[in-house]
Amino acid sequence: MSRWAIGIDLGGTAIKAALVSLQRGILLERSVPTETSSGPEGIVAQLAGVIGSIVAETPSGFHIDAFDGIGLGAPGAVDIATGKLSYPPNLPGWTTFPLRDALVRALEGSLPGSARVFIENDANAAALGEAVYGAGRHFSDFLMVTLGTGVGGGIVLDRKLYRGPNGTAGEIGFMIVDYQGSSVHAGIRGTIEGMLGKEHIVEYARARIKENPESGRMLSGLCMHDFGKLSPRHIERAANEGDPLSLAVWERVGLVLGVGFANVTALMDIRKFVIGGGISAAGTLFFEQARQVLLRSTLPSMHAGIELVPAELGNRAGMHGAAALCFQ
Amino acid sequence: MSRWAIGIDLGGTAIKAALVSLQRGILLERSVPTETSSGPEGIVAQLAGVIGSIVAETPSGFHIDAFDGIGLGAPGAVDIATGKLSYPPNLPGWTTFPLRDALVRALEGSLPGSARVFIENDANAAALGEAVYGAGRHFSDFLMVTLGTGVGGGIVLDRKLYRGPNGTAGEIGFMIVDYQGSSVHAGIRGTIEGMLGKEHIVEYARARIKENPESGRMLSGLCMHDFGKLSPRHIERAANEGDPLSLAVWERVGLVLGVGFANVTALMDIRKFVIGGGISAAGTLFFEQARQVLLRSTLPSMHAGIELVPAELGNRAGMHGAAALCFQ
Repeated sequence: MSRWAIGIDLGGTAIKAALVSLQRGILLERSVPTETSSGPEGIVAQLAGVIGSIVAETPSGFHIDAFDGIGLGAPGAVDIATGKLSYPPNLPGWTTFPLRDALVRALEGSLPGSARVFIENDANAAALGEAVYGAGRHFSDFLMVTLGTGVGGGIVLDRKLYRGPNGTAGEIGFMIVDYQGSSVHAGIRGTIEGMLGKEHIVEYARARIKENPESGRMLSGLCMHDFGKLSPRHIERAANEGDPLSLAVWERVGLVLGVGFANVTALMDIRKFVIGGGISAAGTLFFEQARQVLLRSTLPSMHAGIELVPAELGNRAGMHGAAALCFQ
Repeated sequence: MSRWAIGIDLGGTAIKAALVSLQRGILLERSVPTETSSGPEGIVAQLAGVIGSIVAETPSGFHIDAFDGIGLGAPGAVDIATGKLSYPPNLPGWTTFPLRDALVRALEGSLPGSARVFIENDANAAALGEAVYGAGRHFSDFLMVTLGTGVGGGIVLDRKLYRGPNGTAGEIGFMIVDYQGSSVHAGIRGTIEGMLGKEHIVEYARARIKENPESGRMLSGLCMHDFGKLSPRHIERAANEGDPLSLAVWERVGLVLGVGFANVTALMDIRKFVIGGGISAAGTLFFEQARQVLLRSTLPSMHAGIELVPAELGNRAGMHGAAALCFQ
């Protein structure tokens, strides 16, 4: 009997849910726009609805007796012991809410009483997804970094999530690599997120253009002469067309990322890195730079086995990992 | 029957060995100057000699049947699987040498055949010593930093050493916090060791004096007007007498250390720090600064439980920890 679970990625824009087979991965997906205005209770109702629709469409061969439960990846601070979610970014109006218990109650009667609900931080869920189904499946120890609006991280040690004593481990975005630098993000100077978060990459490009307006000619055309609309996609496209300024922006992304990875290697002896998130689409422009910087920023005795690889599951990593919580 | 072991700290200057009782800690100590010129074989003979002298003086109540073995902390890269020690700093002429096996052979016949020999990196051994007998005994998870000639580190997770997949974890000295900075150490820019290693602290003070010769007046008197002889002790003494330049040197030590700890907290969710090594004698001059910087360099959601404490075992941490390897 094939074991299965439902994996959900609760985001500020969409709730993505999937039926995941232990052996075969995602078999069926549903996505609904997140009704952020309806608050925690409204979102719990949405979650219950999307779970119900997946259960209703469960293909033959997936019996409820082989159902391992529901896993939920959510942004913000997740207390896995109590199932509470605190201050999720992009979900306005939440303080601390007992999301797991509320979802269990909302599902009462519609699922077997034994169905368990697991909740995990979304970056951790993505790392676990890559560990079980994606680019991390050949690594027993790795760090996954998610380059998007923010810079998230998840750590897998000995094929299990490393959460740390209080459940907040993996925040590579808040690692400081330039404590005397000019970037300040969330009140902290010189963090990786403060340099590699989506808006910060764009800000950096704008600042370079301001220093040398002539250098921004190609980007100016791509963003319709409105630098307010400049996005990483434009910088990626211009770099691929050979624009020196845009190439330099990605080189700096590789530099900062390589320094951050060097710190992970020095401190934790982790030598495998999985790089995901929207920004990683431009990966060919900065992967090699990151690898070179990682090598020259660590002792030769730490070089054996160093690998940087792109994530494989894209925005489905969270759903895979949320389901994998149920299989562990 | 009281369990006991022999814990040895192999250093570039001295071989320190102790009879350690599981319950009562160090009961008997011996120290001999390290004969670095005699190479690995000579040092193995020295180790066997000091072990023999401790066994010969073992007090009554410590039976060989309750002997848990010999633990050895050594500088450099230790492969705990093979027992080989590679490129120990301060032990010239070593490349890679099978230290554990050579010691086992040297002890054959003089100890029970069941006596085991354990070998570990010295910074890890010191961390384990503090974990079992010292400042870390109330913490299940902490990082120990050793501030001396270099900056070493050891990580304890769930009361056990965290060695990492390849055994090189804990190298907080090679964490980069100032990737655009001016300090370069072991070929890497902006590492903690490059700013807080003993000589680098002194260099920094000299550079400040050069910028403003008048500011070095107090230090000049303490080091007999020869800045070539300037040491952290002079800077500590001058700071305690209110010398602004010297106070600023320690403030920077606290700043850099606090930033490094913030990175450990963000990445590993470790919130307890034990600070040891010779430089930590000046701890009252930089502990509070390090704590403040750690707090303002991390998210408020990571602040609960943050503690910085001085190490308690001084230069006996390594012997305690080496013996503790045998009790695990």
